[in-house]
Amino acid sequence: MNSLLPRDEFERALYAIGERQYHDLHPFHQLLHGGKLAHGQIQAWALNRFYYQLCIPKKDSYIMARMDDPALRRSWMQRVLDHDGLGEDGQVDEGKVGGIERWLRLTDGLGLDRDYVVSLEGLLPATRYAVDAYVNFVREHSTLEAIASSLTELFAPAIHRERIAGFEQNYAFANDATLSYFRKRLEEAPRDVRFGLKYVLDHADTGEKQRQCLAALRFKAELLWAQLDALHHAYVTPGLIPPGAFVPEGLTPTEYQR
Amino acid sequence: MNSLLPRDEFERALYAIGERQYHDLHPFHQLLHGGKLAHGQIQAWALNRFYYQLCIPKKDSYIMARMDDPALRRSWMQRVLDHDGLGEDGQVDEGKVGGIERWLRLTDGLGLDRDYVVSLEGLLPATRYAVDAYVNFVREHSTLEAIASSLTELFAPAIHRERIAGFEQNYAFANDATLSYFRKRLEEAPRDVRFGLKYVLDHADTGEKQRQCLAALRFKAELLWAQLDALHHAYVTPGLIPPGAFVPEGLTPTEYQR
Repeated sequence: MNSLLPRDEFERALYAIGERQYHDLHPFHQLLHGGKLAHGQIQAWALNRFYYQLCIPKKDSYIMARMDDPALRRSWMQRVLDHDGLGEDGQVDEGKVGGIERWLRLTDGLGLDRDYVVSLEGLLPATRYAVDAYVNFVREHSTLEAIASSLTELFAPAIHRERIAGFEQNYAFANDATLSYFRKRLEEAPRDVRFGLKYVLDHADTGEKQRQCLAALRFKAELLWAQLDALHHAYVTPGLIPPGAFVPEGLTPTEYQR
Repeated sequence: MNSLLPRDEFERALYAIGERQYHDLHPFHQLLHGGKLAHGQIQAWALNRFYYQLCIPKKDSYIMARMDDPALRRSWMQRVLDHDGLGEDGQVDEGKVGGIERWLRLTDGLGLDRDYVVSLEGLLPATRYAVDAYVNFVREHSTLEAIASSLTELFAPAIHRERIAGFEQNYAFANDATLSYFRKRLEEAPRDVRFGLKYVLDHADTGEKQRQCLAALRFKAELLWAQLDALHHAYVTPGLIPPGAFVPEGLTPTEYQR
């Protein structure tokens, strides 16, 4: 039990998690990318996903805080920069605009009020729980497990490419501004994941640590999936929007219900 | 009780903490800067202070993790960069070398083995407790209190100027490499503290918050002082070095004792 897997077998086990349960397989994403969602449903997705984007640099700062090696922290900090952006407000050159701001360009382009998005008032409670679970996970687990949990990025470029193509083909809101988050992540994620994968393969040097890394990656895949479950339940089927959560324009909270 | 002080009075109360108990007033620093310490005593100081330097970016990463505003976190991140440095190892231009590396140039110049310094094996336990107390403080208190605790930087430029002058005048180890940490901090600290002081003055908008900020700054001044108390007790008077802590060359642990 928990015997050490050869490096290539361990790597395949990490990839197998993505093949089984990365959220590109979720029906909500298939509807989203396939042009099957109404505008209000896409707004709901972007609004909820904003909370995830907002918490990514908090999560990465906790990981940094627990790292004992300045060189390792220096590498990891790039992720915080990617999301928060670099430079003073109003003086940021376009290449250094962060992922949070890029996501807000998407919600802008979808016609959501920025103050409402940033207020977080319309979130599904389940979104909050899933995202907060991620932030808490990295506070409480080892640096190795925290890094392993980031390896869903192995599977992200494929979903981003699929999303960009699907949005361009199917939705009028697709343009340089609303797609800029995803295009930028296509540059960043492969760099991040090369670093993270190498770290995990190098440092998971016992069967127990490999098992912890696989569990961490499953945990992360599950919480991405759970966010879509909540969106699907509230805004697709049965369309049961919890009290207080975002209600697409022209709908009543029960209008999606069968 | 806890009524709101006018802004200028609150600011004076913050400064008064420095005037009363910033560690420039500690006898150990007066000996250090006045050329009164033996080489081994200076080594002990630099070795112990290294742990403080090493933990500063962990402390700042925890503060970042708790910040909800990406723009605020972006400003704060500069501190982590200042200490960890920027760029890949071996390719860092001189201006971007971090404070931790600059401190190691000081311990190098003092003839301490780098591996021994980095191992943290020679630390006084009391150093560890005081520094860890700081890291834990910012994890458990509000962002406002964490920022207030950083305001000892208000008083740092004076001590750095005094230290640079005292070292140059009194000690053969003083050179560009060993002084580079302090010279760099003369550039960085005033920028940091302008930001921190304004934040605290702007956000401590109740008497209770002002009281918490004053308490946070006292807490920080106390832990800087406590580090010197431990050094003084171990390496000056009575010179009682705890078992396992750094012993200057040629001394036995009890040699400083009366």
